[in-house]
Amino acid sequence: MRHTSTFTITFGDCDPAGIVFYPNMFRWMDATFHEMLKKFGGHAILCKRTGAKGLGLAQASANFRAPMTDGDILDVTLSIEKWSDKSLTIRYEGRVGDRLTFEAQEVRCLFKAGDKGIFAGSTDELKRILEDQTHGGC
Amino acid sequence: MRHTSTFTITFGDCDPAGIVFYPNMFRWMDATFHEMLKKFGGHAILCKRTGAKGLGLAQASANFRAPMTDGDILDVTLSIEKWSDKSLTIRYEGRVGDRLTFEAQEVRCLFKAGDKGIFAGSTDELKRILEDQTHGGC
Amino acid sequence: MRHTSTFTITFGDCDPAGIVFYPNMFRWMDATFHEMLKKFGGHAILCKRTGAKGLGLAQASANFRAPMTDGDILDVTLSIEKWSDKSLTIRYEGRVGDRLTFEAQEVRCLFKAGDKGIFAGSTDELKRILEDQTHGGC
Amino acid sequence: MRHTSTFTITFGDCDPAGIVFYPNMFRWMDATFHEMLKKFGGHAILCKRTGAKGLGLAQASANFRAPMTDGDILDVTLSIEKWSDKSLTIRYEGRVGDRLTFEAQEVRCLFKAGDKGIFAGSTDELKRILEDQTHGGC
Repeated sequence: MRHTSTFTITFGDCDPAGIVFYPNMFRWMDATFHEMLKKFGGHAILCKRTGAKGLGLAQASANFRAPMTDGDILDVTLSIEKWSDKSLTIRYEGRVGDRLTFEAQEVRCLFKAGDKGIFAGSTDELKRILEDQTHGGC
Repeated sequence: MRHTSTFTITFGDCDPAGIVFYPNMFRWMDATFHEMLKKFGGHAILCKRTGAKGLGLAQASANFRAPMTDGDILDVTLSIEKWSDKSLTIRYEGRVGDRLTFEAQEVRCLFKAGDKGIFAGSTDELKRILEDQTHGGC
Repeated sequence: MRHTSTFTITFGDCDPAGIVFYPNMFRWMDATFHEMLKKFGGHAILCKRTGAKGLGLAQASANFRAPMTDGDILDVTLSIEKWSDKSLTIRYEGRVGDRLTFEAQEVRCLFKAGDKGIFAGSTDELKRILEDQTHGGC
Repeated sequence: MRHTSTFTITFGDCDPAGIVFYPNMFRWMDATFHEMLKKFGGHAILCKRTGAKGLGLAQASANFRAPMTDGDILDVTLSIEKWSDKSLTIRYEGRVGDRLTFEAQEVRCLFKAGDKGIFAGSTDELKRILEDQTHGGC
């Protein structure tokens, strides 16, 4: 399972040093993840199918390899690295042409509402959907 | 002079009501303007050629016609509506497919640094560059 | 009815020209509006009380009077300028110390869900709540 | 060396699940870091003093402990955890009242421009400034 989304970096994504303001890189990772989910109906439909409130974050981390600036065309490629009972780990690589600009990772959970508040539910059903080999998107 | 940029609206662009958080529409207009400038070298090069600090905003206004949400493909089309001595007026239309989602306008100036601070400089040189009919982009 | 919210402008709010990226000013207006709503329970509770989906935007416009930069302390003052049957008009002034940095206006509607989609509902009940003179916040 | 900045979470910081869109947490960490720098003149002045282009990111990571929502008052506390020759490690804790909402870390470098492009310069001078015990801010 791999998916690539492409973003055109604009003036307003950059800070007074003239390079991308780093929280935007997490914004583009999240957008890449959600674009991948569209192949399976999208976040809202997957939440309905799995009885979840949201496919939210437990952890996020990134290594910034090279700065990016206004006009760069950024490709963000995700791969699902690991499924655990209660989480999935997603790996991201950002590239501008051949140049690797960041490497990152998210750990996401399928948050559900219970009697005692929000909890991380089983990822079994989500895994079944996203890894269905008959799906054209994969 | 017309230019269209396309954006994929993502989950994180939307608010708790599930629709686009409205400041993002101004973000996409600004990105459309800067993508248009790329045809002429981009903001940094145009500032150098015209001796300006930036092509900044004097006014911005928008009418929101229809809500947009996660997964919508937004086309933003700009046209330069009017050149004045010290400003240019840019018109924007946002559409998702056939549906008009917003109409907007920006008034921008070519801000220069002078003895008494920042002032709006003449737009003559910028107009000459952007309206050069021999340019492939137009 | 007046309300002021205060924001510390940070590095990441500014663009490569070193001044505030303009969509952020709309972000701060919206935050000021929502902070004002907190005096009356907040957006979620007011929507529940009025049967609305959201207190969303029909129009927004701003005149930018002076640039702002990293470290500026911005006061945004709102006043409700006008109530119509189906909308309210809110006026904003942004100031850094004594300096007026922007003047702006939003027209908002109380969007409700109906058989034929979203429509702008009556503002009567909202007006009654927000203009209740016995409320400490006003 | 410790510093706390406080943020009021607003509607527009939240996503369709009604909780904070996670890249905003990195935005607030960065704002906390820059507010701390203000005690020492701010980012622009410190760059001038150290001959740097910027105090940028090499790594960032976060563990999200509890969701936050519209109206929450967030305190972000930073401490400088470690100084290396070419980087500094900053630790962050986010709290809403007593509740820990995130723990995070940034590794930052003092990026300088050289013949062969951007490189991470020595942090000695920056360390001397930020750890000057006679400074009131610390």
